[in-house]
Amino acid sequence: MDIKVLEGIFDANEKIARENEALFREGGVMAMNLMASPGAGKTSLIAATLELLKGRVRVGVIEGDIESSVDAEKLKVYDIPVVQINTHGACHLEALSIQQALVHIDLDTIDLLIIENVGNLVCPAEFKLGESLRTMILSVAEGHDKPLKYPLMFSDSDVLVVNKTDLLGLGDFEMAELRATVTRMNPDIIIFEVSCRTGDGLAAWADWLEQRVKDYQAG
Amino acid sequence: MDIKVLEGIFDANEKIARENEALFREGGVMAMNLMASPGAGKTSLIAATLELLKGRVRVGVIEGDIESSVDAEKLKVYDIPVVQINTHGACHLEALSIQQALVHIDLDTIDLLIIENVGNLVCPAEFKLGESLRTMILSVAEGHDKPLKYPLMFSDSDVLVVNKTDLLGLGDFEMAELRATVTRMNPDIIIFEVSCRTGDGLAAWADWLEQRVKDYQAG
Repeated sequence: MDIKVLEGIFDANEKIARENEALFREGGVMAMNLMASPGAGKTSLIAATLELLKGRVRVGVIEGDIESSVDAEKLKVYDIPVVQINTHGACHLEALSIQQALVHIDLDTIDLLIIENVGNLVCPAEFKLGESLRTMILSVAEGHDKPLKYPLMFSDSDVLVVNKTDLLGLGDFEMAELRATVTRMNPDIIIFEVSCRTGDGLAAWADWLEQRVKDYQAG
Repeated sequence: MDIKVLEGIFDANEKIARENEALFREGGVMAMNLMASPGAGKTSLIAATLELLKGRVRVGVIEGDIESSVDAEKLKVYDIPVVQINTHGACHLEALSIQQALVHIDLDTIDLLIIENVGNLVCPAEFKLGESLRTMILSVAEGHDKPLKYPLMFSDSDVLVVNKTDLLGLGDFEMAELRATVTRMNPDIIIFEVSCRTGDGLAAWADWLEQRVKDYQAG
């Protein structure tokens, strides 16, 4: 007897995420899903990245928020495509809202699409958007014990950016302990230590990201 | 023709929350739902509150976490009832898990039940647990623009504790702007400014909370 094994597409979100992924591949656009708690520094990291990659990588941004366009407004000074998605209560972005936002962005004009997810260390990790890079931020102010309490986000991210390193030494944040815990859960994760306020560590992050976009586009 | 108007019980969670509420009322226990982003200082505020209310108010704690018992472990040094709930992926507590946890706490032995919700500024606001006091924490490190981006939590809370005031002046956090925004959204909200690290402002918070428990018990 033949047993037919079906490919597991878990849900509508997964299906649409794959469609988005194909669109990005076709357009030569690397999509990055940027996730973090409220106030960890998502918009600040995007602004710093735009500054550093100016003339090097063409960037577009999708801003996800429950309400308001506070973050999109902040990015107005950069002459790049920015689309704001308001989720009206929903605590994460889904692939469908990305697909709808893509109507307003000409993928031929960008190399990198940064998608700022809703500030939440839990639910965004469960919904793929079609991205090829999953980046999370943890702020030093949040504490080094967070990986144990929010394991999916830390296990599933490709990159961890530890922000607000200018606050190191003011609290009881232990960078070595954070690194040990995260690496145990996710041995392949790449960790950057930055301060969006002082600029520390941002050049290394931007250089790495530029290279990653080139690698993606090279296939 | 008679039109029958049904009382709106929206869902099972609402029904069970009301059952919990009745249990708390009967036992003379004021229940406080404590909500905040990851790392805003929920467990630190609980520890400081336990310290200050020692001999004044009998406290029990329910710790909600996705995984781990990191927070419950921290409270072991206090000789009080602590129950840990692991939500195994869920980003908020629901009334049913509180009801199940209550089997392990003798309500006759406490006056105040503090329920530490999962670290999340979005979903916990949507699920009543049966509490009579909804308290949220915002850390100075998160920024003063959060009410616009996470409106439900700020609109629905009775109390806002602004924590990590020792970090004021290090970033661009504007307390006056935060207060103006929050009060516009929620005119009745009571705001405390504290630092769980230095102890600033905690006495006023604990005194207020003690009085609130007495008022609740008086009827």
